[in-house]
Amino acid sequence: NLVTGGKYEGRPFVDYPIFKGKAALSMYPVPPKFNKMNSGSIHLERRGVVMLTFWPAIGQRKYDWQKRQHFALSAVELGSLISLGPTDSCEFFHDPSMNTSLAGQVRKTFQVSPLSDDGGYYFNMSVVNPNQKINERFSVPVSKAEFAVMRTSFSYILPHIMGWDCFTSPQPETTLKVNPPK
Amino acid sequence: NLVTGGKYEGRPFVDYPIFKGKAALSMYPVPPKFNKMNSGSIHLERRGVVMLTFWPAIGQRKYDWQKRQHFALSAVELGSLISLGPTDSCEFFHDPSMNTSLAGQVRKTFQVSPLSDDGGYYFNMSVVNPNQKINERFSVPVSKAEFAVMRTSFSYILPHIMGWDCFTSPQPETTLKVNPPK
Amino acid sequence: NLVTGGKYEGRPFVDYPIFKGKAALSMYPVPPKFNKMNSGSIHLERRGVVMLTFWPAIGQRKYDWQKRQHFALSAVELGSLISLGPTDSCEFFHDPSMNTSLAGQVRKTFQVSPLSDDGGYYFNMSVVNPNQKINERFSVPVSKAEFAVMRTSFSYILPHIMGWDCFTSPQPETTLKVNPPK
Amino acid sequence: NLVTGGKYEGRPFVDYPIFKGKAALSMYPVPPKFNKMNSGSIHLERRGVVMLTFWPAIGQRKYDWQKRQHFALSAVELGSLISLGPTDSCEFFHDPSMNTSLAGQVRKTFQVSPLSDDGGYYFNMSVVNPNQKINERFSVPVSKAEFAVMRTSFSYILPHIMGWDCFTSPQPETTLKVNPPK
Repeated sequence: NLVTGGKYEGRPFVDYPIFKGKAALSMYPVPPKFNKMNSGSIHLERRGVVMLTFWPAIGQRKYDWQKRQHFALSAVELGSLISLGPTDSCEFFHDPSMNTSLAGQVRKTFQVSPLSDDGGYYFNMSVVNPNQKINERFSVPVSKAEFAVMRTSFSYILPHIMGWDCFTSPQPETTLKVNPPK
Repeated sequence: NLVTGGKYEGRPFVDYPIFKGKAALSMYPVPPKFNKMNSGSIHLERRGVVMLTFWPAIGQRKYDWQKRQHFALSAVELGSLISLGPTDSCEFFHDPSMNTSLAGQVRKTFQVSPLSDDGGYYFNMSVVNPNQKINERFSVPVSKAEFAVMRTSFSYILPHIMGWDCFTSPQPETTLKVNPPK
Repeated sequence: NLVTGGKYEGRPFVDYPIFKGKAALSMYPVPPKFNKMNSGSIHLERRGVVMLTFWPAIGQRKYDWQKRQHFALSAVELGSLISLGPTDSCEFFHDPSMNTSLAGQVRKTFQVSPLSDDGGYYFNMSVVNPNQKINERFSVPVSKAEFAVMRTSFSYILPHIMGWDCFTSPQPETTLKVNPPK
Repeated sequence: NLVTGGKYEGRPFVDYPIFKGKAALSMYPVPPKFNKMNSGSIHLERRGVVMLTFWPAIGQRKYDWQKRQHFALSAVELGSLISLGPTDSCEFFHDPSMNTSLAGQVRKTFQVSPLSDDGGYYFNMSVVNPNQKINERFSVPVSKAEFAVMRTSFSYILPHIMGWDCFTSPQPETTLKVNPPK
C-alpha cells in the first residue's frame, strides 16, 4: 500500500489546491498499483486515479480540513473532463460501497457545468451518507485558466495512471565533455 | 523477443479494456524493438504499435476471450485516429500474411465511423479467414469520453513507438534537504 | 537551494531567448523545491515557475543584460497563457515584497495582447520601483510560431512545476540483443 | 560530439520515413549539446533540431539515397509547423554557410503548402549550390494522418530539443510486492 499512516512513502505529496469563497478544491494523482508475480511477470493490479478533495470555508480565508470529502476520478472520467466543450456539462455518481453489503447507502455526486461569463466551470460535489448523518454540498468556481491547468495536468497524468508509461527506449550514457581550463 | 510464452518479461501488461453490449475492446502499447550491433550502435529494428483486441459478448457481462481478434495500429494509423474530426471516418485493411505465400487469404478490416448522438465513434473490426473458417465481426460503440482517453494515450504513446524518446537531457542529482528535528 | 552564486548546480541552464527590435525576452523553467522530512516523507515545499526575463535593446542587435527584469509565471498564469484565444488578452500583477513590510512599493505588470496581423501577441512588462528609481517598460512582439513554442513548452513543463511527474511505472531492464558477426 | 563516423554512440537512430511517388522524406530528432564547465555547471551549448532528409525516387519503389539533402528545423520552425491551420503555408530559408566567407552561395528552401483535397500538405524542398552544380527540388505530399504523426512527435520533441526536460521530481523506489505462491 502506497499510503501508510497518512504519509506517502518515498513519494512527494503533490496536491494542487484552489481556494474560493465557499470551499476549497485540491487535486493530486494516485499512481497505479502493480504486482510482481512469482513467475516474474508484473501485473497492473489497479489503475491510478486523480483524487479530488473538497473542504468547506468557515470564514474569511479559513477552511475546515476535517470536513473534507474525496472523489476519485478514473481514466474515463478524466477523458470526459478534458474533452468538455465550453458549454458542455458532465456528471458522475460514485458509490464507495459498491459490490459490498453496504451498497446504495452512500451516494457521491460530482457535477461540472459551465460558468456563464468566463470560460470556466462550476465544480459541484455532494455526499449523502445517512448512517453518518453526512449531507455535504460543495461548489467551487474554476476559472478558465485554472481549468487549463487541470486539462493540461490531467492529460499528462492520464497515460501514467493507465500504466502506459511502462516503456522507454534505450538511453545513451550521458558523456558530457569537460571544457579545458583557460 | 519481448513476449515469451505469452508473458511480458519485466514489463507490466497494461491493457485498457472497454466492455460494451455486443463485444469488448482492449488496447495496449507494444514497444519498438531495438538491436545492438557489434559496432556498438543501436538500431530501431521495428517500430511499436498499439494493439487492439476485440472479443465477443456471449451473455450478460460475459465475454469469450477465446474468440479474440487483434488489430495492430501503426504510427500513421494512430495519426489518422487522433486527428479525426467529429464527423470523420477512417478505415484500414491489414493482411497478416502480406509478403508471404499466404498473402491475400486473410483480410482484416478496422473501420471507425461517428456515433450519431454523442461525439463518440463506432469501432468496427472484421476478420475473414476462409482456411480457418473464421468470419468474425465486432462492433463497439466508443463514447466521447472513452475516445478522449484514446486520443490522449495514443498521442502520448506515438513518439514512444517511433523510438523518439531516446534522449533526455542531463538530470541533476536529487539532493533533498532533510529538515532538522524540532 | 538550487541556485548558488548565480550558477545552477548539476542542472543545465536552459533559457530560450527571443531578440526583437526594442527588447529581448528569455524564458526558462525553475523546478519545484522538495523537502525530505525526518520521517522520510517528501514534501513539495514550493511549486516551480517559468521565469521570464526582459532586457532592453541599446542599439543594433545590442542588448543591456544589466537592465534585465524578471517575471515569474505560476502554474495558473501559465494556464491562462496556454488557453489564450487568438483575440484574447491577459494581465498579471506581482508584488515581489508581498507579505513583507515593503508590500506595495514595487509593482510589476505583465500583459499579453494580440498582434493585429499575425496570430501572435505583444508581451509587455513594466516595473515601477520608486525606491530604486526604476521605471522600466518592455514590449516584445511574439510571432505565432514563437507563441506555439511557448504554448508547447509551457504545456510540457506545467505538470513538472506542479510536481506531478513524481511517479513512473516500473521499467523493464533493457536487454538489447547483440547481433552475431557476419 | 554525438555523431562519430556516421554512427550514433549509444543512441538508436530513430528516423521516420515517408515514401511517395517522386521522393522520400525522413525525419529524426537531433538532441541538444551540453557542455560541463570546470566549475561543475552545465551549459546548453547548442539546441537540438529535427532533421528532415529528402531523397529522390529513381523508379518504382526505388530511391537514390546518394542524392539526399538535409534541412534542419529549429524550435521556432517546428512551432510554425505545429500551429499551421488547414489553409496556412510557411516557408523557411537556410544558408548552411551563414557567417562564413561562403555565405550566400548555397540556398536551401523548405516550403509547406496545403493539399487541395485531404487536409494534408505538400512538403517542398530545394537546394541550389552553384559550386557543386546542385539544383535539386523535392516534393512530397504528406497526408492528414502523416501530418498528425509529425504534429504529435514534433510537439513531443520540442521541449527536449530546447533542453527543458532537464528536471524531474524525486521518484520513489519501486517496491513491487511479490505474490505468495498459491
